[in-house]
Amino acid sequence: MSLSPTLELAIELIRRRSVTPDDADCQALMMQRLSPLGFEGEAMNFGEVQNLWARRGTEGPVLAFAGHTDVVPTGPEKNWSQPPFEPAIRDGYLYGRGAADMKGSLAAFVTACERFVAKHPDHKGSIALLITSDEEGPAHDGTVKVVDALEARNEKMDWCLIGEPSSTHRVGDIIKNGRRGSLHGYLTVHGIQGHVAYPHLAENPVHTAAPALDALARTQWDDGNEFFPATTFQITKVEAGTGSNVIPGELTVHFNFRYCTENTADSLQQRVAEILDSHGLKYDLQWHLSGQPFLTDRGSLVDAASQAIQAVTGEPTELSTSGGTSDGRFIAPTGAQVVELGPVNATIHKIDECVKAEDLDTLSAIYEEILVRLLAK
Amino acid sequence: MSLSPTLELAIELIRRRSVTPDDADCQALMMQRLSPLGFEGEAMNFGEVQNLWARRGTEGPVLAFAGHTDVVPTGPEKNWSQPPFEPAIRDGYLYGRGAADMKGSLAAFVTACERFVAKHPDHKGSIALLITSDEEGPAHDGTVKVVDALEARNEKMDWCLIGEPSSTHRVGDIIKNGRRGSLHGYLTVHGIQGHVAYPHLAENPVHTAAPALDALARTQWDDGNEFFPATTFQITKVEAGTGSNVIPGELTVHFNFRYCTENTADSLQQRVAEILDSHGLKYDLQWHLSGQPFLTDRGSLVDAASQAIQAVTGEPTELSTSGGTSDGRFIAPTGAQVVELGPVNATIHKIDECVKAEDLDTLSAIYEEILVRLLAK
Repeated sequence: MSLSPTLELAIELIRRRSVTPDDADCQALMMQRLSPLGFEGEAMNFGEVQNLWARRGTEGPVLAFAGHTDVVPTGPEKNWSQPPFEPAIRDGYLYGRGAADMKGSLAAFVTACERFVAKHPDHKGSIALLITSDEEGPAHDGTVKVVDALEARNEKMDWCLIGEPSSTHRVGDIIKNGRRGSLHGYLTVHGIQGHVAYPHLAENPVHTAAPALDALARTQWDDGNEFFPATTFQITKVEAGTGSNVIPGELTVHFNFRYCTENTADSLQQRVAEILDSHGLKYDLQWHLSGQPFLTDRGSLVDAASQAIQAVTGEPTELSTSGGTSDGRFIAPTGAQVVELGPVNATIHKIDECVKAEDLDTLSAIYEEILVRLLAK
Repeated sequence: MSLSPTLELAIELIRRRSVTPDDADCQALMMQRLSPLGFEGEAMNFGEVQNLWARRGTEGPVLAFAGHTDVVPTGPEKNWSQPPFEPAIRDGYLYGRGAADMKGSLAAFVTACERFVAKHPDHKGSIALLITSDEEGPAHDGTVKVVDALEARNEKMDWCLIGEPSSTHRVGDIIKNGRRGSLHGYLTVHGIQGHVAYPHLAENPVHTAAPALDALARTQWDDGNEFFPATTFQITKVEAGTGSNVIPGELTVHFNFRYCTENTADSLQQRVAEILDSHGLKYDLQWHLSGQPFLTDRGSLVDAASQAIQAVTGEPTELSTSGGTSDGRFIAPTGAQVVELGPVNATIHKIDECVKAEDLDTLSAIYEEILVRLLAK
C-alpha cells in the first residue's frame, strides 16, 4: 500500500529525534520541499533554539502557518508499543512521538502548500511558515523572538493558523480562537520563627495565611463571557517549616491565574493584594505575566477555517478558548488574527501518541481550502 | 582569687567538648568525686549514648539528681567572646557552652553531695545521680532507657530533682513541677493532581485543606487549669506541589500540640479527626506521642525545694509548668515526684552562654538544703 504524501512526510519528520530544543534537521527537510515552490527560508536562531521563517511572495496579505518541530520527551521507551521515533501505521493510526503534536500538522502544511501553489502559482499576498524548535520548553527563544524580529523590520502577519492539535473527537470539531491569560504569583508570608512550646513569642505564618488562602480559593473572579470560561485561581505550591518543634518564620505560596478578558493582570493583582491586606498579613508578592488573554473574533480567518472544515468534512465546527497557553499568545499582540486548528489531541504528550492516519490527509485538505479562501485570485 | 569548688568543677566540665551524644569523660570526672563519697557508679550505655547511674545507699527513699553532660553545638565559634570550651569568668559571669545548661548544675550536684555526706555520713535512704549524654539530641537512648532498666529490676526513685535551668531572673525564682504533653501529628491531604488550565479535572488539596487548617489554628482546645496554661496547636511544616503549572496531588502538614491535663492525646486526636472530617477531606493522619503531661503536686519534694530556696536566698519561689519538654517526661510515669530546679535560663543554647558565677554556689547550697530536708536523720 502506498502512503499519501502527507503521511510520508509526517513519518520522515517523526523519525527525527527532535526533543526540545533540538530541531534535528526537521526544518531543513521542510525547506527541501518548500524551496522548489518559491519559498525563501530564513533561519532565525537564538541560543539553542532553531527557528524558521519561510515566505512565498512579498506582498500582503500574509497568511502564516505556525508550528513547532520539537516534541516532548518520550517517557520510558519500553512502555511504547513500538519505538517512539520509529513511526508505524497500525489499525489505521500513525504512532510516534509528535504524530499529533505536531509533526502531522507540519506535513499537512507543506503538502497543502504544494497543491495550492501548483494550482495557484500567482496567488494573492504571501504564504509564510513560522516554525520553532522550542514550543514545548521555556519558549523564550522561539516564536516570541521571531515575532520581535519581524516586528522590528515591520513585517506583518495578517492571519496566523497554528497547527496545534485543537480537535477533540474528529478532526476540525474545534477551532481555538483565543486563549486565557496566565498570571503567576509568588507570595511570601512573613511570621516570627520560634519554639512550639512558646507560641506567644512567635507568629505562625501558616496560621495567619490559612484564612487568606481559603478566601483566595473561594473567590469568584468573574463569570467568564461569550468566548471564555470564568477565570480560575490555583495554588501550585506551598512550603513552610521543617517539622519537629519549630514554628516556621515564613510561608511560600505559588499560584496561577488562568484568566479571561473580564479581568486584566492589573485587576487580579489588585484584588489579591486587597484580600491579603484584609487579613492583615505581612508579605512580599512577585508577579510573572506568562501570557495575556487573546481572542480572534469571527472574521475572515475564523470564517475561512470554519467554511474549509465544512467543505472538506461536511461537519460543523465549534469555537473554543479553553485549555493551556500556546504560542498564539506571542503572535496575537501583533494584531494578527490567530486560530489554532490541528488534529485530535487525545494522546498528546502520552505514551503511544498517535493520530488517525486519514486525519492528516483531511487536515492537509482543510489547510489547502483555507489557502484557497484567503489567497486564491 | 581562688574559685569555689563548684565553679572549679563546672570549669573542668565545660572544658570537655561534650556535644551530643559525646560525654567526653564528664561522667568519669563526676565519678572521680563521687566514688570517694561511697557512690557506686554504673555505666548504662546504649548505642552512642553514655549514661551513668550512681547511688549511695541501698535503702529507700531515693532522692535522685538527674541531668545531662551533653551540650548543644556552639554555633559559629568566632561569634563567641571567648572560645566556648575555654570557660572564663568575666564581670562575675562564667562563660562557656553548658555553663547554664547544665554543667553548672552537675557541679552543684556533686559539691552539694560532698558537703552533705561529710556532715551526714549515715543519712536516710539513698542519694542517686541519673546522668545522660543525650538529652539535647534524639533522647532515645538516654534517660528513658535508664528508667526502663531501673524499672525492670524494680529499682525506684521517690524524688527526682532535675538540674535543668528553670530560673528566669534570679536563681530559684521558678521551680518547674510539671510539663505539658507533646503530641505530633503528620497529616497528608489527598487531592487529584492536574494541569492548572484544567482545574475541573483536578482537586487541589491546598484549597480543600485551607479552611480545615484555619479551623484547627483557631480552635480553643481548653482553658488550661491551676497548674497548666491552655493547650496550644502549631503547624510546623506544610508542603505541596512544585510550582509551575501543576495542581498538587497531595498536601503534607506536620503539627504539634503542647497540651495540658485538661486534654489527653486521645481527646485531641479525636477532635482533630472531627474537624478534618467536617471539612470533607480525604486524608491520612499519623500520630507520635512525644511525652504525656506530668505534674508533681505540692508534696514532700516541692515543699523541700521551696523551703530550701527560701532558706538559702531569702526569696520565695513560684511553681510553673510552662516551657518545652524535658527528661522529666520519662521519669514522672514511674510515680516519682519530679521537679526541675537550676540556674537562670536566659542564655541557654545561645552564643556566649553564661551563668552568674555566684549562682552556682547558691544552687549548690540549695541542693544541699534539699538533701538535708529529705534525707538527714
